[in-house]
Amino acid sequence: MNTFGELFRVTTFGESHGPALGAVIDGCPAGVPLTREQVQAALDRRRPGQSAVTTARAEPDQVELLSGLYQGKTLGTPIAAVVRNQDQRSQDYARLTTEDRPGHADKVWRDRFRHRDPRGGGRTSGRETLSRVIGGAVAEAFLARELPALKVVGWVSQVGPIVAPLPPPGLTRAQVDLEKTRCADAASARAMEALIVDAKAKGDSWGGSLHVRVEGMPVGLGEPVFGKLKALLSMALGSIGAVTGVVWGPADLEAQLKEPGTVFHARTPQGTPSDVYGGIQGGLSNGEPLLVRALFKPPATLTDHAKAGRHDPCILPRAVPVAEAMVAMVLADLYLFTLARPHRE
Amino acid sequence: MNTFGELFRVTTFGESHGPALGAVIDGCPAGVPLTREQVQAALDRRRPGQSAVTTARAEPDQVELLSGLYQGKTLGTPIAAVVRNQDQRSQDYARLTTEDRPGHADKVWRDRFRHRDPRGGGRTSGRETLSRVIGGAVAEAFLARELPALKVVGWVSQVGPIVAPLPPPGLTRAQVDLEKTRCADAASARAMEALIVDAKAKGDSWGGSLHVRVEGMPVGLGEPVFGKLKALLSMALGSIGAVTGVVWGPADLEAQLKEPGTVFHARTPQGTPSDVYGGIQGGLSNGEPLLVRALFKPPATLTDHAKAGRHDPCILPRAVPVAEAMVAMVLADLYLFTLARPHRE
Amino acid sequence: MNTFGELFRVTTFGESHGPALGAVIDGCPAGVPLTREQVQAALDRRRPGQSAVTTARAEPDQVELLSGLYQGKTLGTPIAAVVRNQDQRSQDYARLTTEDRPGHADKVWRDRFRHRDPRGGGRTSGRETLSRVIGGAVAEAFLARELPALKVVGWVSQVGPIVAPLPPPGLTRAQVDLEKTRCADAASARAMEALIVDAKAKGDSWGGSLHVRVEGMPVGLGEPVFGKLKALLSMALGSIGAVTGVVWGPADLEAQLKEPGTVFHARTPQGTPSDVYGGIQGGLSNGEPLLVRALFKPPATLTDHAKAGRHDPCILPRAVPVAEAMVAMVLADLYLFTLARPHRE
Amino acid sequence: MNTFGELFRVTTFGESHGPALGAVIDGCPAGVPLTREQVQAALDRRRPGQSAVTTARAEPDQVELLSGLYQGKTLGTPIAAVVRNQDQRSQDYARLTTEDRPGHADKVWRDRFRHRDPRGGGRTSGRETLSRVIGGAVAEAFLARELPALKVVGWVSQVGPIVAPLPPPGLTRAQVDLEKTRCADAASARAMEALIVDAKAKGDSWGGSLHVRVEGMPVGLGEPVFGKLKALLSMALGSIGAVTGVVWGPADLEAQLKEPGTVFHARTPQGTPSDVYGGIQGGLSNGEPLLVRALFKPPATLTDHAKAGRHDPCILPRAVPVAEAMVAMVLADLYLFTLARPHRE
Repeated sequence: MNTFGELFRVTTFGESHGPALGAVIDGCPAGVPLTREQVQAALDRRRPGQSAVTTARAEPDQVELLSGLYQGKTLGTPIAAVVRNQDQRSQDYARLTTEDRPGHADKVWRDRFRHRDPRGGGRTSGRETLSRVIGGAVAEAFLARELPALKVVGWVSQVGPIVAPLPPPGLTRAQVDLEKTRCADAASARAMEALIVDAKAKGDSWGGSLHVRVEGMPVGLGEPVFGKLKALLSMALGSIGAVTGVVWGPADLEAQLKEPGTVFHARTPQGTPSDVYGGIQGGLSNGEPLLVRALFKPPATLTDHAKAGRHDPCILPRAVPVAEAMVAMVLADLYLFTLARPHRE
Repeated sequence: MNTFGELFRVTTFGESHGPALGAVIDGCPAGVPLTREQVQAALDRRRPGQSAVTTARAEPDQVELLSGLYQGKTLGTPIAAVVRNQDQRSQDYARLTTEDRPGHADKVWRDRFRHRDPRGGGRTSGRETLSRVIGGAVAEAFLARELPALKVVGWVSQVGPIVAPLPPPGLTRAQVDLEKTRCADAASARAMEALIVDAKAKGDSWGGSLHVRVEGMPVGLGEPVFGKLKALLSMALGSIGAVTGVVWGPADLEAQLKEPGTVFHARTPQGTPSDVYGGIQGGLSNGEPLLVRALFKPPATLTDHAKAGRHDPCILPRAVPVAEAMVAMVLADLYLFTLARPHRE
Repeated sequence: MNTFGELFRVTTFGESHGPALGAVIDGCPAGVPLTREQVQAALDRRRPGQSAVTTARAEPDQVELLSGLYQGKTLGTPIAAVVRNQDQRSQDYARLTTEDRPGHADKVWRDRFRHRDPRGGGRTSGRETLSRVIGGAVAEAFLARELPALKVVGWVSQVGPIVAPLPPPGLTRAQVDLEKTRCADAASARAMEALIVDAKAKGDSWGGSLHVRVEGMPVGLGEPVFGKLKALLSMALGSIGAVTGVVWGPADLEAQLKEPGTVFHARTPQGTPSDVYGGIQGGLSNGEPLLVRALFKPPATLTDHAKAGRHDPCILPRAVPVAEAMVAMVLADLYLFTLARPHRE
Repeated sequence: MNTFGELFRVTTFGESHGPALGAVIDGCPAGVPLTREQVQAALDRRRPGQSAVTTARAEPDQVELLSGLYQGKTLGTPIAAVVRNQDQRSQDYARLTTEDRPGHADKVWRDRFRHRDPRGGGRTSGRETLSRVIGGAVAEAFLARELPALKVVGWVSQVGPIVAPLPPPGLTRAQVDLEKTRCADAASARAMEALIVDAKAKGDSWGGSLHVRVEGMPVGLGEPVFGKLKALLSMALGSIGAVTGVVWGPADLEAQLKEPGTVFHARTPQGTPSDVYGGIQGGLSNGEPLLVRALFKPPATLTDHAKAGRHDPCILPRAVPVAEAMVAMVLADLYLFTLARPHRE
């Protein structure tokens, strides 16, 4: 249950306040160009301490690749990657030994595991997502070889009351990363930034949503009936700590569900950034851009404002590379499944 | 990929226009009281042709249990169940051999499988959900023995523009089934029914949403990190054909996401029907009622109105037992995982 | 655990004295030519009551295919097959309700499952292998399309003290089936037959071994490190009830293990029916004929000689198609894995 | 396929000439006493360079535990362990880039993976078994808590023509380790040692067999029908590189298979070190000591005698802890399955 995927398998490990975190990627074929720098670059996009809108924790998060690579290419064997914890400051959490944090899963975790790691969040920490980003980086390296037109791009689409418009097709990660908030719309980004900086000062927090769009999708990814593309995307994104909902299809789904089917289906805009089905029909990709939205609840807030600076007032900007990674892992896995099903006439 | 679950495994089979559909349930322990009548009763709740709000197809859908039972109790061996197709009328679909239905997955399916069953929807048909109901009936029989306080109850919460209020705690399936629309609020139910009957006449259709609530939840169901309760629920419900989104937590999540964390988390109403977290914290159940919502797009509509009567103008009423079944299967699987993890101090 | 395989998955069900047995095959690609007659022909080779060397039970074992087929080809969806039990005569077993059969697993089964199906062997019955033969027939149909040169042929190589010589290359099933004992060497077959007929009369039984050879093997089947071809063959054959050992490589392995490596490895006879490695190196097939041997203990004998006729005095002849089926299932599964690993330079 | 087990899962990684090898153990419950020293002690038993009968390579093989532990107990989260490679001397292997080693899997591996790691054996190296020993050490720590009477003890039972007698019950690892050859019978051990030292000098090698016996077995371990205890043991031991057969039950199985069933089954010696069934009936453990034998082919020999010292002339002594580890992993996994199957009357 710490493994994601069936054929492209990512097993994650590590506690936020233990020696290290990491991942083992099994099932990545041989001959895929992959370097430590690629994986590091993916981690750098998730790293905290980069701007006024994130936590002040500074974690260099340097990755080491222990296996599965030779001369810049994968060997077809498991790829193990490790990131040492450095800025642990677990003394910050010392008092937590006997006190459960409201809004956290501390009590639930202890009821289940009969103990709780007093050093901090353990596996429920957002820091666990670091392993997902490693898995996503390898998945993307593989997809880049097999499906070079495929582009997975996420952005922040809502922070609290600010809802950004759907960006035009062709949006790139570089464009998204120009904004601290990773909102692709400049005006909305300004407003979101102001909200987050204000919340950080007050010890408050914001939820919202992000979108991930995949352009250059092949037709037919997905496995009937329980491995539908939408089912696996829901699981993948729903497994991220703060996610509280996953929807796909049009950006304004809630509004469209109030319309009758003749209107809903007539809208299908072939060739536009995303069709009304979000690129999925019958559980399989239909070749249109894939569009999925993940809703995030606001982080639990701390009454102890002195610590507020060590938590993200809004995790959405840093969640974008995590969500992209999960989507890439799903696509890599399902792509391998299409190879494993040599259907013929 | 036609198997759901890891420890409580449900494998489904069957085409909508082939000889039969069914399921094999593997992993249900020995000694669980279970009769054919229980499974049949579950199927009867999903059966079409029951009222003005569903398709006119009449399918008796009689289940036969082929294995795994002896004298009214499970043997601990696989339980195989079969339902013969009767009212196939596949001639209705004859012309489809060379023509893809707009709004259906016909073309996508053929691109992937290099062919399409010209008899009809095959595995993408809503009729496939019959197998899920069988799996859910066995899951519920098992849960009834292990967690007798647990109650899984779903209802239709939205049809097009009609949004029903959250029902009070203690709602039963019997109460829900009193309404043809399976909306638990009488006034909303009337309005929904009028909408659906009208759509049926016009060859139109409606989407909306349903909720599933689980009362009597144990603490700690869910597996870190990819097997979180919410991740598996998302996959389970997201794997149902028409579902286009899964959210959990408060009924009015979209509105609440516009509030800051201090407001969002302060709302946590311990002891009420469902807390702000929808009964899930850290990916594990927290003992509060579980509350999850699945969004459904409207069924694809047919330009040929003569056939309209053979399709559901709104599948939500009949989707309620399917969603309950998927939730029950997730809970049975995760419950077995808690046994398989003998954590101790 | 009633499912075999990862990509080519065979789920089996059914008790020997319940309504039916069967299998669901999931993962067989679309477009594979397959008919009910093919599956029936495979079952007929396993059927009891065919000669003086098997049990007198007459079971027609007619298979019905419920799904996954259309016009003589697979649909790429799960293939469900059912065989009704007919000659159950469970009254024969009536007295067993309170009495455990010596040499059987009755007591162990009851300790684990807290009960034992008093109607008979349930899932430990040899009748369970019927489901494996169904799975093997589908696997062979798939392999015939993908690897037409591949031939899986088994034969009885030992009954009690009679050890038959290794048959020449090119042996066919039709040749093997000419002998009631399925021993490919006529002289050994005569001796084995005499032994078995004598044991049947006395209520005694014989063990021994069978071999399975696969000619036309592709290079590279097998997955490092736990999915090695030899590991999966061991599991597949070791899961057959009476099997008490699995060895691969040369027929006279025990003798050869007494030789030093310089002699052992020098023997490698490239191009002969089977090399010293049994067609496996590094866990992967090396393109040479695969050769594997399964050792069978003698069936438990009954003190009640009146019933002796209802049990096989030597199950080896009927075990040949079961072992072939298991090998075919392993090869189909591993072949799909090679497709799912697009290794490139 | 680099993961072993379903509930107690061990994922291994690492190339023999890369930066490190290791394992991630997922599914070990919380609260199990476990220290780095325990894991190190297990690795030390497998370490090369310890005596005249093994390779001269000196590898300290120091393990580091990166996650899953806190204050000497498991957290219930994945346990990641890493061993750095030190004495790589990959220059020894430099010439192999263009030349396949006879008797090795070099060519087969390249046919499959489209390349071969020119630094050495990669995942086919015996060094890969180090990860298994780590997994086994954790499995044994868990079993020690749950089933304290259970003892897994292996020994070398045959080297070339020398076959040792079955040791008496109660044999301990400490006793076995007193012999460099890990043969529990002193006279046989002397003869084996002489053979191996002689082969080492000549660049020759020996195969043979080892046994693993488990005393203190609970009743009912094993899952019908494909997860039988004997099936999983066969796979587990059959996945070790040089193993060429797995048999269970009596030490002199080949001889006993020449006897009729009335003799074979009458031998069942209740209460002796191992019964005729090797502790397995109906695929489940019957509470008697488990006895399984793994046959090993001799290591491939090198024509270049200068390198002979860097390879084991007989891997059996070092294979004992590896086989014990695989058995422990199977038992831990199946034990968790018994918990996950709450059968009741």
